[in-house]
This record gives sequence, structure tokens and C-alpha cells, in this order.
Amino acid sequence: MRPATFDAAMRLAIEQAERVKGATYPNPPVGAVILDSAGAVVGVGATEPTGGAHAEVVALRRAGELARGGTAVVTLEPCNHHGRTPPCVDGLLAAGVSRVVYAVADPNPVAAGGSSRLAQSGVAVQAGVLATEVAGGPLREWLHKQRTGLPHVTWKFATSVDGRSAAADGSSQWITSEAARADVHRRRSVVEAIVVGTGTVFFDDPTLTARLPDGSLADRQPLRVVVGEREISSEANVLNDDSHTMVIRTHDPHEVIRALSGRTAVLLEGGPTLAGAFLRAGVIDRILAYVAPILLGGPITAVDDVGVLSIAGAQRWRFDGIEAIGPDVRLSLVPN
Amino acid sequence: MRPATFDAAMRLAIEQAERVKGATYPNPPVGAVILDSAGAVVGVGATEPTGGAHAEVVALRRAGELARGGTAVVTLEPCNHHGRTPPCVDGLLAAGVSRVVYAVADPNPVAAGGSSRLAQSGVAVQAGVLATEVAGGPLREWLHKQRTGLPHVTWKFATSVDGRSAAADGSSQWITSEAARADVHRRRSVVEAIVVGTGTVFFDDPTLTARLPDGSLADRQPLRVVVGEREISSEANVLNDDSHTMVIRTHDPHEVIRALSGRTAVLLEGGPTLAGAFLRAGVIDRILAYVAPILLGGPITAVDDVGVLSIAGAQRWRFDGIEAIGPDVRLSLVPN
Ligand SMILES: NC(=O)c1ccc[n+]([C@@H]2O[C@H](COP(=O)([O-])OP(=O)(O)OC[C@H]3O[C@@H](n4cnc5c(N)ncnc54)[C@H](OP(=O)(O)O)[C@@H]3O)[C@@H](O)[C@H]2O)c1
Ligand SMILES: NC(=O)c1ccc[n+]([C@@H]2O[C@H](COP(=O)([O-])OP(=O)(O)OC[C@H]3O[C@@H](n4cnc5c(N)ncnc54)[C@H](OP(=O)(O)O)[C@@H]3O)[C@@H](O)[C@H]2O)c1
Repeated sequence: MRPATFDAAMRLAIEQAERVKGATYPNPPVGAVILDSAGAVVGVGATEPTGGAHAEVVALRRAGELARGGTAVVTLEPCNHHGRTPPCVDGLLAAGVSRVVYAVADPNPVAAGGSSRLAQSGVAVQAGVLATEVAGGPLREWLHKQRTGLPHVTWKFATSVDGRSAAADGSSQWITSEAARADVHRRRSVVEAIVVGTGTVFFDDPTLTARLPDGSLADRQPLRVVVGEREISSEANVLNDDSHTMVIRTHDPHEVIRALSGRTAVLLEGGPTLAGAFLRAGVIDRILAYVAPILLGGPITAVDDVGVLSIAGAQRWRFDGIEAIGPDVRLSLVPN
Repeated sequence: MRPATFDAAMRLAIEQAERVKGATYPNPPVGAVILDSAGAVVGVGATEPTGGAHAEVVALRRAGELARGGTAVVTLEPCNHHGRTPPCVDGLLAAGVSRVVYAVADPNPVAAGGSSRLAQSGVAVQAGVLATEVAGGPLREWLHKQRTGLPHVTWKFATSVDGRSAAADGSSQWITSEAARADVHRRRSVVEAIVVGTGTVFFDDPTLTARLPDGSLADRQPLRVVVGEREISSEANVLNDDSHTMVIRTHDPHEVIRALSGRTAVLLEGGPTLAGAFLRAGVIDRILAYVAPILLGGPITAVDDVGVLSIAGAQRWRFDGIEAIGPDVRLSLVPN
């Protein structure tokens, strides 16, 4: 079997993992693909919702006897510990796979050791296949949480191509297309919290829910978080019954992050004051800029002060994704 | 022969045409590929510099006797008139090609009619192959000039991902990478004029030449154009001997365009005042935004007033190119 087959199977496993992102925390969103001894796909699976089966187990179940002598391709090193479910390594050994290919080693000392136990049991193990894609993709937020103990924060903003987040008169609905807004709502449904400042609540009175294209509420709703000292109206949409809401009376981004430390993935939606504070504090782990093919001019930009005086002190990031979303472009950046 | 072969040959012809862009005006930059009767490429060619041979003639020369019974794939309808060179249709008939495939019809009434003369002579003619790619690519500026009698104006700007063209203290060297700057210099070498306002001359004192990566001057240098009422210093770099310079004492973008009406492709490099004036006047035909993965914040944006008050009045464009250039992203926009 050529390595190209493993790559293709890993891409399939990545797709599976992306589909369950947000639904598995605190478990990692993992994808698994079982190939039979001839290299044909005989089972695919992803982590079940919290407390459910791990990806390998789901995929093995689908493959049944066809797994014997085959290969398991998994985005994360199979776990070796008894949690709510038995170790995946046991399942793989019982199924009789002769090879395990995975992308990223398990950073969690309790769960790790799967690789060496498999190898000791005579299973061929290959690590690191598409590791960068997995670590920057489906596992990014979970790995960040494992490493730092803090949630991964994505700052999302919508902008015209000349860098404006509203026209001169303050109007901003809508800068980006329906397709881009649908993409944002999809992302809202896979994070555990959305954060805005009181300013955004006063100006826009947003509901901050994850909605489907038909306007109905998505199955999973993130916690809504409002940051700032001012009292918000009890009539504010952000306080409606669609989801829970947390008000954090502070100006310190670190305090916000700590208050959300039980979560894995957080989406910061602004406005400019709060985004600037988070950027200056260095607590943003990814930037998503939705750039519309329009020009607005005027004084309103998505962020004002990011703590930079001179070009030599610029905040330097790296594009890790450039994608057309309908008529707009989504630029993804990660720290350099 | 399957149409896929024609597409592939047309892509090759497009590449050829792109390579001579800027060197052929007022002739169109055209690419041509000759396939033998079995569909193999036996000759490629592009328009020679002004006064030289047309693309078809160059490609037929390379193909020689192998063109007989074959196909000519050309980005522009072969011409049918005696200019400095004899009609291309004559050359194609003399070479005995049995089929001509082209992308874009010749809008010039004097040169047109090639297609029908070929068809009348028993040559199979297929028009419109990759027409959009050619009309938006190598022939864009030339077609614009044919249609309007005016040069095609591209506004180029460099920006951080938060829409700034300089840091708060005014420093801007460099926002974008060496790769992006090399791309700009390559573009300068294929336009006939670069336009800036007096403000840019006062602040930056640029030379506005097209330079190769080693810093030396490119073979072809565009005319440098400075717009504004103020007198610029005779010591300004823009007045050095590297190229010619035209000073236009006006604030009217239409007057600038008219002064350059003998040209086909013009590059507007700013700054914000002049770019805003051109955008408000509606005389920009393409925008090229070089977006760097950095954040700057602060008050300096690439353009200030584009004549938009409210989101409903936004200038609406369309992305026709999204490309990574080194660590940066180049966004290309055309009017919607
Ligand atoms: N284009 C986009 O993607 C986007 C996204 C969201 C919002 N917006 C726009 O942004 C505008 C609202 O702007 P905004 O800046 O007022 O909204 P904001 O950033 O959401 O809220 C500002 C408030 O956040 C609180 N805050 C928290 N930490 C702070 C800190 N370190 N320093 C200062 N204040 C802190 C303060 O509240 P207290 O005064 O209560 O203490 C402050 O007034 C609206 O027009 C909205 O449309 C645009
Ligand atoms: N990031 C980028 O891509 C980029 C590119 C170029 C420049 N820049 C920056 O832009 C800054 C210079 O800004 P700027 O706006 O002063 O430069 P500018 O736009 O090049 O020049 C402004 C001058 O253009 C003249 N002008 C022509 N038509 C006009 C009109 N319709 N209305 C008003 N003025 C008109 C005026 O000259 P008179 O007063 O003489 O009449 C005006 O003062 C520099 O700091 C430079 O670094 C950035």
C-alpha cells in the first residue's frame, strides 16, 4: 500500500473530525478511517458527543471483521487509558488491525502511551501523517487547551477591502454576504462561547445565537458573554431565552479568559474596543477576517489601537487559510 | 480531438500572451498555439514588440509544414487587415490549417472579419474558448482601450489585514514582503504609466521605476506621472534620469486620464488623497490590494473618502483573483 493511500484516508479522517468539532468537548474531536488489508475504506467514524464512543471504536464497529489485518488511520494517537470508555488501543488490538497510522501524538500524559503499547503488541505504527493539517485544523483548539489550560480564542471580524467595519454613518448591515454570515453562524455553533463588549450590545443589540440558514436556532448554542462595567438593559436581545448569558464586569481580557477556562473554543466578535484590548493583551490565537469586495472609506475601522506605534513594532501573524466564501474572502491568520 | 485539448492549448496561449503584456501596445498582447492534425503542440508564439509579427505568424513559423491540416488556437480572433504586417488570416490559409479556435472576437471593426473569411475558406472556426479568462486576463487592458478610447487604470495599494497603509507614526517601509514588492515591480514594467499625487512625492520621495529583484532597472520603464498643483522639488527622485516624468497640475482625475489617453495600461499608486479622488470619479478599472498578515491599528488608512456615506451606497466590486504572494495575499477586484 502506498503512503498516498494513508494521506487520502487521513484527509477523510480530518473531514470526519471537522464535522464533530464543538460537539465532543472536553473530548478531542477525532476522525478515524479503517482500511482493509487491500487498502479499501471499510469503516469511518468520528468521536461521538461527550461521553460517547471514541472515533476508532465507531470506525471499527462499521468495519467489523474487515478490519482484521487492515490499517487504522486516526487523527490523534489512540488513547491508552480507561476513562468513560475503555482504551481505544484495546479495541484496535481486539479487531486485529496490523497497522495504525496517526497524525498527532496525544499530549495528555494520562491518555498517552497508546503508540508504544500498539508497537509492543506487534502492530506497525506510523506517526506524523498530515500532522500539521490536523494540529492546525480539527485539533487546534483542543491541543491549545491541553497545552495552556486556557480556551482557544478566535477573533472574527467583517471588513470592506479598505479595512472598514461600518460606513461613515455607522451602518454595517450587511458588509459581508449571506454566505459569509452563514459561515459565521456555523462557527458559532461549534464554539462554546461568543464574547462581545457592552458597546456592541448597546449599538447593535445582537442576539448572538447560532442560526441555520432558514433563521431557526442551531442545535447547540454557545454561551453568550458580555464584557464591560456598564449595566446592559434587561430587554437586551443577548439576554433572551435562546441561550445562557454571562456578564463579566471587567476591562481585563485575562480575567475574561480565566472566567471561561472551562471552555475549549471561544469566539470574540468585537467590537473594536474589546478586540483592541484582546489584541494588545496577546490573548488571540486566531484571526478570521471576512473581507467583502466593497469600499466604504470613512472613520470606522474594525480595530483602532492594537498597541503598535511604528512599522517595526507591527503585530506579525501568518496566513494559514485564504478562501472564497460566496462573493467574499475569508482570511485566517495564526500567530507567527 | 477532444475540446479538453483546445482548453489546454488556449491556456498555453494565454501564458504566452501574459509574457508579452506591456511590450506590444498599441497592438494587443496575443498568444497562439499550433496543434498538428493529431493534436500535438508544434508551434507556440506571442505578439512581437510593436511593429513586429503577430502571434499567429510567429507560431506558424515555428510549426512549419506541421501546421498543415492542424489547428490554430489563438487568444484573439485572427486579424483580416493589412497594417504594418499582412493579415493573419492569409498566413493561416497559406499554412493550410483546417481549424481555428479563438477566445475573444476582435472588437476593432478594421481588423475584424477574420473569422468569417476563414469560415468562407472552408476552415472550421470555433469561437469563445476560455473567452472570460482571456478578456479578464491578457487582453483586459487592450479591450478596455478599444471600447472606451481611454487607458485602463489599476489602483494598487499595500495594506495590513486591519486596513492600514502605515503605522500610527507614519512609517510604512515595509508593510508587504519582498515577494509582494517584486510582484509590484513586475507590474510596473508592463504598464505605460505610474501615477501618484504630489503628497506621495513629498512624503516618500519615491523613484517610481520598475526594478528587477537585484535592484537594477527593468528594460522597460513606465512614464512617471505626478498629479497636483504644488511644485515638486527639482531634486525629487521622481525627476531623475531613470525614466520620463509628466507633471499634471490638476485635481481632476478625468483630466489625468485624458492626458494619458494615448496609453493602454496605467497604474495608480496613490496616496490616499489621489486614490480617493479617482475612486469617487469612478475611473478605476481594477483594484489590487496587497494584504500583509500584520496588524497596525492607528489612523492611517490606504484611502479615506470614497464618496460613501452609508452601507447602502457602498462601492460594490467583485473579486476576480485571490492569490498568495509569498507571506502576503493579493486580492484583485473589478467593477461589479
Ligand atoms: N465589523 C465587525 O465585525 C463588528 C463586530 C462587532 C461590533 N462591531 C461594531 O462595533 C461598534 C461598537 O464598538 P465598541 O468598541 O463600543 O464595542 P465593544 O468593543 O463591543 O464594547 C466596548 C466596551 O467594552 C468594554 N470593555 C471591555 N474591556 C475593555 C477594555 N480593556 N478597554 C475599554 N473598554 C473595555 C467597555 O464597556 P464599559 O464601558 O461598559 O465598561 C467598552 O465600552 C458597533 O457599531 C458595532 O456595529 C463591528
Ligand atoms: N500604502 C500604499 O499603498 C501607499 C501608496 C502611496 C502613498 N502612500 C502614503 O500616502 C501618503 C501621502 O498621502 P497623500 O494623500 O498626501 O498623497 P497623494 O494622494 O499622493 O497626494 C495628495 C496630493 O494630490 C493632489 N491631488 C490630486 N488630485 C486631487 C484631488 N482631487 N483632491 C485633492 N488633492 C488632489 C494634491 O496635490 P496639491 O496639494 O499639490 O494640489 C494633494 O495634496 C504618504 O505617507 C505615503 O507613504 C501609501
